[in-house]
Amino acid sequence: MQSVSDDPVELRRAFRAGWSPRSTARLAPGRVQANLVILPRDAALDFAAFCQRNPRACPVLGMGAPGERILPAMGVDLDIATDLARYRVWRNGEPCEEPLDVSELWTADLVGFLLGCSYSFEWALARAGMELRHWATGTNPPIYRTNIPCVPAGPYAGNMIVSMRPMRPADAIRAVQITSRFPRVHGAPIHIGLPELIGIDLDQPAGGDPLPPGQDELPVFWACGVTPESALRAARLPFAITHYPGAMAITDLWNADLAD
Amino acid sequence: MQSVSDDPVELRRAFRAGWSPRSTARLAPGRVQANLVILPRDAALDFAAFCQRNPRACPVLGMGAPGERILPAMGVDLDIATDLARYRVWRNGEPCEEPLDVSELWTADLVGFLLGCSYSFEWALARAGMELRHWATGTNPPIYRTNIPCVPAGPYAGNMIVSMRPMRPADAIRAVQITSRFPRVHGAPIHIGLPELIGIDLDQPAGGDPLPPGQDELPVFWACGVTPESALRAARLPFAITHYPGAMAITDLWNADLAD
Repeated sequence: MQSVSDDPVELRRAFRAGWSPRSTARLAPGRVQANLVILPRDAALDFAAFCQRNPRACPVLGMGAPGERILPAMGVDLDIATDLARYRVWRNGEPCEEPLDVSELWTADLVGFLLGCSYSFEWALARAGMELRHWATGTNPPIYRTNIPCVPAGPYAGNMIVSMRPMRPADAIRAVQITSRFPRVHGAPIHIGLPELIGIDLDQPAGGDPLPPGQDELPVFWACGVTPESALRAARLPFAITHYPGAMAITDLWNADLAD
Repeated sequence: MQSVSDDPVELRRAFRAGWSPRSTARLAPGRVQANLVILPRDAALDFAAFCQRNPRACPVLGMGAPGERILPAMGVDLDIATDLARYRVWRNGEPCEEPLDVSELWTADLVGFLLGCSYSFEWALARAGMELRHWATGTNPPIYRTNIPCVPAGPYAGNMIVSMRPMRPADAIRAVQITSRFPRVHGAPIHIGLPELIGIDLDQPAGGDPLPPGQDELPVFWACGVTPESALRAARLPFAITHYPGAMAITDLWNADLAD
């Protein structure tokens, strides 16, 4: 394509046609992007319960019926088997393949979940005039495994994964106020300052890019959409599919409409 | 009186009759209590501007016309010259007398202001199930002078005074959410953690009682109703009246009704 459209329908068609950008972070400004989890039916009910019990980390935006590839409530003709830029196929709890399309793996037995993503609350922070440190560096915020256990459900368990953004104290307070209105996309921070209290050594991120807080900043921690991936590992399911990191499902929903 | 009434009208009558408890903190549960400032007319307009420009520290709940002792919007027959448990009379910017009644000092030239007080947001925190450290010890939270300048107006100026409550991080986040709904009684915290950034040494409170944060706590700072008192000192007015510390004006308003 010659130029990148802002239209989510056109973007999904481009992904379906094989376009696979490294990240969807800057695409379709203002639209809700989502984490994708696709599970066999017999593993899906426990996962729904896991999400219900851990809404900060796993807020469900959309859920298909078994076999349902198209989720019309999420977007026009949105096909979860073809409309993401890249997928991850999991076997026995480990990521194994990274296809651009999973329609050949699709069966009537599969159930799709779309979960809220930090891009949405970052959008809300940006709209409020805040500038996040990792935007300036063009990197991803660091993520950490906490010592906060998720409430288990069936085979799904594990500790909450969080993302961290350094902020000056007044910005941290403002960020609590702003993100509290968006519980469907992780909502308010779950922790501020004192990383050791939740089992975190700031110098040892489990992913993302390092971003040490400055002298005038506090680390602010939000529940992260990597948590369900960690729960998938724990569950050691024979088969599952997720989005590839950074290649989120782009929906037709507007972030602004998610505000409580 | 044999037992203490919860009724604000009866309490004000008791104060008017000379009853002078040490603190009104536990009286009239759920009702709005307020800081009182009484100024000569020619000093009142600048003070109104000072409050308007510094709403976190000086949120105006009620304001009389010159000479108006009764503020009916604040309470039935509420007489600001007699209905507080104790007053402070200021001369040339210094507290000089501590009468139980200021009706003999009252003139048609005086203007009364009632300003929101931390008791109201503490009530909101309590209603949400939070337990504040200084309640357990029966003390007052420590207050500090910050390096944050108030926006001056006429002779009124000075740095913001804050109160500090130690909280675990998750409680601090919850406290931001809860108190944000109450902008007329100081609202959200103005700072969290890193006291040195706002010029504070936690070991050197300017008032209240020491309450060092524990290892698992952050200091959380709210703008404080002592700020206007500090501005009165700066203004060195020939004459002013305030409530005596802890002896707030008890209104008929309900804290619950102040929630935005």
